[in-house]
Amino acid sequence: MSGNTFGKLFTVTTFGESHGAALGCIIDGCPPGLELSEADMQRDLDRRKPGTSRHTTQRREADEVRILSGVFEGKTTGTPIGLLIENTDQRSKDYSKIASQFRPAHADYTYMHKYGVRDYRGGGRSSARETAMRVAAGAVARKFLEQRLGIRIRGYLSQLGPIRAEKLDWDQVHQNPFFCPDADKVPEMEAYMDALRKEGDSIGARINVVAENVPPGLGEPIFDRLDADLAHALMSINAVKGVEIGAGFDSVEQKGTEHRDEMTPEGFLSNNAGGVLGGISSGQPIVASMALKPTSSLRLPGRSIDVDGNPVEVITTGRHDPCVGIRATPIAEAMMAIVLMDHYLRHRGQNGDVDVSTPVLGQL
Amino acid sequence: MSGNTFGKLFTVTTFGESHGAALGCIIDGCPPGLELSEADMQRDLDRRKPGTSRHTTQRREADEVRILSGVFEGKTTGTPIGLLIENTDQRSKDYSKIASQFRPAHADYTYMHKYGVRDYRGGGRSSARETAMRVAAGAVARKFLEQRLGIRIRGYLSQLGPIRAEKLDWDQVHQNPFFCPDADKVPEMEAYMDALRKEGDSIGARINVVAENVPPGLGEPIFDRLDADLAHALMSINAVKGVEIGAGFDSVEQKGTEHRDEMTPEGFLSNNAGGVLGGISSGQPIVASMALKPTSSLRLPGRSIDVDGNPVEVITTGRHDPCVGIRATPIAEAMMAIVLMDHYLRHRGQNGDVDVSTPVLGQL
Amino acid sequence: MSGNTFGKLFTVTTFGESHGAALGCIIDGCPPGLELSEADMQRDLDRRKPGTSRHTTQRREADEVRILSGVFEGKTTGTPIGLLIENTDQRSKDYSKIASQFRPAHADYTYMHKYGVRDYRGGGRSSARETAMRVAAGAVARKFLEQRLGIRIRGYLSQLGPIRAEKLDWDQVHQNPFFCPDADKVPEMEAYMDALRKEGDSIGARINVVAENVPPGLGEPIFDRLDADLAHALMSINAVKGVEIGAGFDSVEQKGTEHRDEMTPEGFLSNNAGGVLGGISSGQPIVASMALKPTSSLRLPGRSIDVDGNPVEVITTGRHDPCVGIRATPIAEAMMAIVLMDHYLRHRGQNGDVDVSTPVLGQL
Amino acid sequence: MSGNTFGKLFTVTTFGESHGAALGCIIDGCPPGLELSEADMQRDLDRRKPGTSRHTTQRREADEVRILSGVFEGKTTGTPIGLLIENTDQRSKDYSKIASQFRPAHADYTYMHKYGVRDYRGGGRSSARETAMRVAAGAVARKFLEQRLGIRIRGYLSQLGPIRAEKLDWDQVHQNPFFCPDADKVPEMEAYMDALRKEGDSIGARINVVAENVPPGLGEPIFDRLDADLAHALMSINAVKGVEIGAGFDSVEQKGTEHRDEMTPEGFLSNNAGGVLGGISSGQPIVASMALKPTSSLRLPGRSIDVDGNPVEVITTGRHDPCVGIRATPIAEAMMAIVLMDHYLRHRGQNGDVDVSTPVLGQL
Repeated sequence: MSGNTFGKLFTVTTFGESHGAALGCIIDGCPPGLELSEADMQRDLDRRKPGTSRHTTQRREADEVRILSGVFEGKTTGTPIGLLIENTDQRSKDYSKIASQFRPAHADYTYMHKYGVRDYRGGGRSSARETAMRVAAGAVARKFLEQRLGIRIRGYLSQLGPIRAEKLDWDQVHQNPFFCPDADKVPEMEAYMDALRKEGDSIGARINVVAENVPPGLGEPIFDRLDADLAHALMSINAVKGVEIGAGFDSVEQKGTEHRDEMTPEGFLSNNAGGVLGGISSGQPIVASMALKPTSSLRLPGRSIDVDGNPVEVITTGRHDPCVGIRATPIAEAMMAIVLMDHYLRHRGQNGDVDVSTPVLGQL
Repeated sequence: MSGNTFGKLFTVTTFGESHGAALGCIIDGCPPGLELSEADMQRDLDRRKPGTSRHTTQRREADEVRILSGVFEGKTTGTPIGLLIENTDQRSKDYSKIASQFRPAHADYTYMHKYGVRDYRGGGRSSARETAMRVAAGAVARKFLEQRLGIRIRGYLSQLGPIRAEKLDWDQVHQNPFFCPDADKVPEMEAYMDALRKEGDSIGARINVVAENVPPGLGEPIFDRLDADLAHALMSINAVKGVEIGAGFDSVEQKGTEHRDEMTPEGFLSNNAGGVLGGISSGQPIVASMALKPTSSLRLPGRSIDVDGNPVEVITTGRHDPCVGIRATPIAEAMMAIVLMDHYLRHRGQNGDVDVSTPVLGQL
Repeated sequence: MSGNTFGKLFTVTTFGESHGAALGCIIDGCPPGLELSEADMQRDLDRRKPGTSRHTTQRREADEVRILSGVFEGKTTGTPIGLLIENTDQRSKDYSKIASQFRPAHADYTYMHKYGVRDYRGGGRSSARETAMRVAAGAVARKFLEQRLGIRIRGYLSQLGPIRAEKLDWDQVHQNPFFCPDADKVPEMEAYMDALRKEGDSIGARINVVAENVPPGLGEPIFDRLDADLAHALMSINAVKGVEIGAGFDSVEQKGTEHRDEMTPEGFLSNNAGGVLGGISSGQPIVASMALKPTSSLRLPGRSIDVDGNPVEVITTGRHDPCVGIRATPIAEAMMAIVLMDHYLRHRGQNGDVDVSTPVLGQL
Repeated sequence: MSGNTFGKLFTVTTFGESHGAALGCIIDGCPPGLELSEADMQRDLDRRKPGTSRHTTQRREADEVRILSGVFEGKTTGTPIGLLIENTDQRSKDYSKIASQFRPAHADYTYMHKYGVRDYRGGGRSSARETAMRVAAGAVARKFLEQRLGIRIRGYLSQLGPIRAEKLDWDQVHQNPFFCPDADKVPEMEAYMDALRKEGDSIGARINVVAENVPPGLGEPIFDRLDADLAHALMSINAVKGVEIGAGFDSVEQKGTEHRDEMTPEGFLSNNAGGVLGGISSGQPIVASMALKPTSSLRLPGRSIDVDGNPVEVITTGRHDPCVGIRATPIAEAMMAIVLMDHYLRHRGQNGDVDVSTPVLGQL
């Protein structure tokens, strides 16, 4: 398989470039009988959409998704679901400069080395615009998981550059443009982003994502552990440079007595595991965290080379997110949903269905 | 595919339990014509082997690998390579207690929920003993990559609990039982481990792994980015809870002007990217880091439940690594090698061969 | 993977139903740098298109394909190629009867059992309309194979019901609506089809497909032999009930001395093998043949049951091909092209490129 | 994936050469809780074993299989099942001649072109000896299918060269060395084979395989239709040149009214479909047939070339089956079992379990 497909049983294959005609995706393996309409996807697409605040790119895309197949009389049929989003705001501009230069820290240089050609309009296939289709596909998985298993998947921005959220108030997450669960930090973030925009610089971020009520038993050791597939899924999102499950890198300094999550008949007493033991879900909340680097599309000049190997100074103009992490929460949720969906189907294939009548003991 | 296979073109499928008859593996897709003997794998297997110092488990396994197929007259034939390691030190003991209890923070509980049965002898399939076959398979990949492309893959322990290596002296890595590149820290690590063993506790660790001279162009966007596959590979190693590429979680607080690796005609000026841009290798060294949790096999009692849901106090006896990170360096190297090998073949399939005559510009 | 993807490195994933909004497909893994436009695909799509003679269904579909991604400045970029064909002639009709009955020998009954729901409009996903996307994808593979390796893929109808082509004159194949290579048999076929249409019955057919100038070495034993993948590909076409390679079922009565294709320094002396030895191409022409059953959409009544299990008499009205084999030649060619393309890339991945400068010795 | 793995959820990966140390296989994805011992596999292995009559090769292999993992206390655990058969009768002989010649109609020529090297001892990987592991793996699938779904899979030789079985008496199949269901034809076959052996020639055969009580709903359109996967599976068996499902090539001359299997509330009235409609099982018996070519290992001289391209006359000595079809029945059954098992798990993954309490209506 050639890299544009994710999942083994619930498979998502995407196509499309930043400034091409359209983005599209095929979801294969969706169980039949799920009520599904464009509105189910639009909700999440709108959360990811650019241009909803002054802190994201001003590109205007409606990101309206169309279902082209796989749904009949309002329900999935078990056959592949074709999705399409037309690109509407591909601004015509002069790409001649960008075509001959490698922007520092962009995929320009590596795509050119890999393929010998590249679509330089807006980053082509390497643009994060591609993640719109992940969000659409994730919405399908999310709906199924919620209806069938009662799984709830939610994410939030836990850190924007130097500013950390110190409270986790889920109700706040959608009350600000940052997906920040700590209302007290929002003004600070607003000010930080305004200053940054003036400077012309960009900043990194950290996103956490949590899945609750996941039944124990999902995950396929040895290589397709649930956490390994999650790491794969999250690291495949543009700009992600690190992934943690549960205690993550804090585990390095933990002693065994401290890290191990003890159990009682009522459930686990802590969740350093992040909900995964031996690669299999334990019933505890699945907790993952990811680091996003600052975008490299800056109007502050940077040293680079052109396609002939000559030194150049590159300035990136155009419409860019100064913090790609701001719009990444729905994408992280979508990838979590796709991974869980895929593993639920894989588990059911080998082992039969999970017993949804038993309450999940694992909850922290 | 059911989870015990890694790779798309260079595929590694393993079997075997901690106390079963044998461990085995099939490598499929290895290019023909590679000189290969058991000795090529034994070198790495010996580096991972238990019982080589007082700081690791005292289980005695020769870990002697046999090649059963795929090699003829000293060279690979392109057909599948069957490998076998017989288990020789499965100590017979009374497993009745462990059979009915879930050790806290072990896979006992999750395997039971997933499969309804479990091989409780020494952790069965969930034991890190399985990683021996990864090391054997990785040695094949490593040899090919070195001979064909001049790639060098090396790892080291960068942190053992609270003790961080502060120098990176590659020559030191194999001069101590910890794979520590900083000779000055070794006495401290020795003392720390001795104290820990007396306590009966365990500790986490961090391992770094670096691949040098990787040609630009390896990696398959969107989902099978080189870094995503690396994250998958490393997170699939027992006890790993976090993975970073390049600057990793430090990216969260970096500004774009700080993070972006500028280029000159002579190469990159920094390597925050960790050698991967847009999911494709850039020619810079590939740099990954992983966090390993402390083992949960402790003789200090912990609260848990038995298979009937009753509360129990669990004490784990037997032979265990107080720091699984100590033996993890060769495993991380092996997974890096398998990922690069797989991506080299995938790249060659779609795009034709890389030009090995051109020096890699990417070096930092 | 969930059944709607074909190929390992050159992968084709399709979606779409007979009377849905559109058909689509994603080609992933296409080598970069191939000149490609809609016209390259349209040529083959037009050959498969319905309504070009009175002997096929009178449904009017322009089958105009749009490239939505993966092509930039006229060349493939190595990223996924998204293709779309809008359905334009979904005639609105009363489906209430068909919705509650299982047409004999149709997929109605099995889709209902598999998925619990089905899109009954025109057969939904089970309709041969889906093959349009195979033809489009096959055209991409065909173009690459021709330009890069000089491979030529051609098919023809060798038998229509009781009437066998007795001459193989390639120039005749496109001179008649049947893809028949024997001009003498065309009037007989015309008459036969006219009579059949009056009767309201249908008839089977046999299609042969030949690939010339295929380099030796393509095919992956053991399970993904070239002939096994070809059998898979051809049997996956609607209505196909049998596949032969080379001598096929005639091999049953052949002696070894008769079947074996002897060689001289100039090449093979016969081609009972059909170009495949041990699952790997030999350089001889690849020769495959397939049997297509008569369509079961008849206006002559047939006994069946309804969704409640009651006996019913079913009459199928609407626009149908009385011999689905007539339009199957371009589909068989497309699947042959996709299989060869996939195996060429897989071969190149593991073994490096084939040497195209050496003439293929294998030719018969 | 590199060709030595079959199946998506129930995956079988094999290794081993004719004269190597051992044959092996890993079954991944087997449901847990299945009682399994070596004896379950040995029964089928013994049916395939060489040397049980004078009509097969006189190579003596006990073909004793060992289970190395995946079974604990007599039951499968859901983890990979490692199987091993040591080769015991690799007769040492002078291979110098065979090493430099390409035997006509063998894989010698194609393996050499593909890989540049080949293991020429007994055909290496291309030998049908590899099929032993398929039979072992098939036995696991067969046992599960029988216990869980009541599926029965049986095969027979329907034609040996010019001699056709005219009766199908299942009780006779194991009463003669040919798996012939027509006792009256056995003496003729005996005489035919004796004469053939004297001549030094070989002959083709046809094998039929039938699966009864298969629930409706198995098979994944579009590309992974049940019949397409069966064609793949059967064509991947050494020497197979043709595959039919149901009426097969007879469909070419059938009219729609003749071919279509009408239904009544009691079931189908005929089975031209061979149990598959639209790529999905209908509940009717699955009926497949395959053609095996005559072996090309003949002591009658044949024209060929050597590795330098010079003309040579080749005589194949050694121990060979004059009719490979004779031992092929258990192999065909095994592949049928593996395909059905894989599709059952795939179906259960996407759609939930089949209802085994309802009797299968589909029976003919």
